[in-house]
Amino acid sequence: MRLDVYLTPGELTPATLTGRTVVVLDVLRASTSIVEALSAGAKSIFPVASIEEALRLANNFGRDEVLLAGERRCLPIEGFDLGNSPTEYTRERVAGKILVMTTTNGTAAMSLTTSAARVFIGSMLNLRAVVAELVRTDSDPVLLCAGRETHFSLEDAACAGEFASRIMAERPGDWALNDGAHAALTLARSFGTGVDLFEIAAGGRSIVEAGLADDLEFCARTDVHDIVPVLQERNIKLLQPLIGTTS
Amino acid sequence: MRLDVYLTPGELTPATLTGRTVVVLDVLRASTSIVEALSAGAKSIFPVASIEEALRLANNFGRDEVLLAGERRCLPIEGFDLGNSPTEYTRERVAGKILVMTTTNGTAAMSLTTSAARVFIGSMLNLRAVVAELVRTDSDPVLLCAGRETHFSLEDAACAGEFASRIMAERPGDWALNDGAHAALTLARSFGTGVDLFEIAAGGRSIVEAGLADDLEFCARTDVHDIVPVLQERNIKLLQPLIGTTS
Repeated sequence: MRLDVYLTPGELTPATLTGRTVVVLDVLRASTSIVEALSAGAKSIFPVASIEEALRLANNFGRDEVLLAGERRCLPIEGFDLGNSPTEYTRERVAGKILVMTTTNGTAAMSLTTSAARVFIGSMLNLRAVVAELVRTDSDPVLLCAGRETHFSLEDAACAGEFASRIMAERPGDWALNDGAHAALTLARSFGTGVDLFEIAAGGRSIVEAGLADDLEFCARTDVHDIVPVLQERNIKLLQPLIGTTS
Repeated sequence: MRLDVYLTPGELTPATLTGRTVVVLDVLRASTSIVEALSAGAKSIFPVASIEEALRLANNFGRDEVLLAGERRCLPIEGFDLGNSPTEYTRERVAGKILVMTTTNGTAAMSLTTSAARVFIGSMLNLRAVVAELVRTDSDPVLLCAGRETHFSLEDAACAGEFASRIMAERPGDWALNDGAHAALTLARSFGTGVDLFEIAAGGRSIVEAGLADDLEFCARTDVHDIVPVLQERNIKLLQPLIGTTS
């Protein structure tokens, strides 16, 4: 059994993810917003790397058929329907809708996973459900931290450590860990995965400086949605409803 | 006062190091070998990225004028004079000599520092001397971990944390830390910087598997050489003898 954590997308080589089950983590905030949107009934989400690509895809669908979502420098993009605050992704706004989303880090990391066998989107909100799916399928998972532009982000690393800790607790045995997994486990133990962690991390401080401090508390909520978003053919959908199947 | 740790060279953008004082850390083993070689009287060391470049440079000098040094997959390179075990860099072998060195990670990281104001080579062996020089010159240092190919390496991160901890202790004040520095400090506290750490890390395990387990103990020795190797114009020399000037 093998568990690898990559602390930044820059660690990946073309072969790193081949055939693996990958969980992409961008807890502040793209992963959290995606989980919240799907929980609130969004039909699917197309993560794209650039604003231009988002507009092009929206035009292909018909501009009125989709919601444009995302951020640059933490703030909503002009002409877009939604920013990247998970609090905006309410049932009233997103139920039944297709979203096209572009964010600085999360959607970029997702675009690097094309060689993986399966790709899930993980956040603290759906930690339990993702771990249950990994354990159910005997996966040797890769936890991929989106990081912050090219840089390491403390909050993704510590949250990856919490995922790793839960996976190892649910499926005890002889786990081979890469150096990133050893580090992430230690960072989770040391910093926790709550608002205190987010306020130390540069990504969290930027969000506070942008006037969006409430987002931190929202993103720290743990095990509140028993759903597993899966990225397939450049589109994120619910894998299956797991409500009632997890302990 | 600002202290940044970059956990992999992949975190760097062209602007990251501009004008900064950088310490390159590849404790297993390139940094350690360089410190050991200069302590043993080597005149200077040219770190180069490839075997071809090493051979070309050696021919320019005249093959008999230099020692070729380095490793691939932990092991000595055919036709080279020295491997990358710091134990090989004895006074008998290297005193008065120019070395041309190529290693998998350390020399590659060094090649990325051209925009920095000053570049030092750090290892556990010369931690005290490097920290003293950073403190003496009121530097806002960058600690650059060489990592392992593109991957994060636990031993460089923990040793960077020990450097950070010592810098902050010697120059108390209000330090702004990036996320990598927060992580490194925690990893140093949790894993230490000794043989136990090296035996957990993938890089250390590879060295043991290559039959070079003694190198781990050698690389863990702390504050045994009061020298600061400086990289300037693609050449590493002693900055100055600091013996007797540090506490």
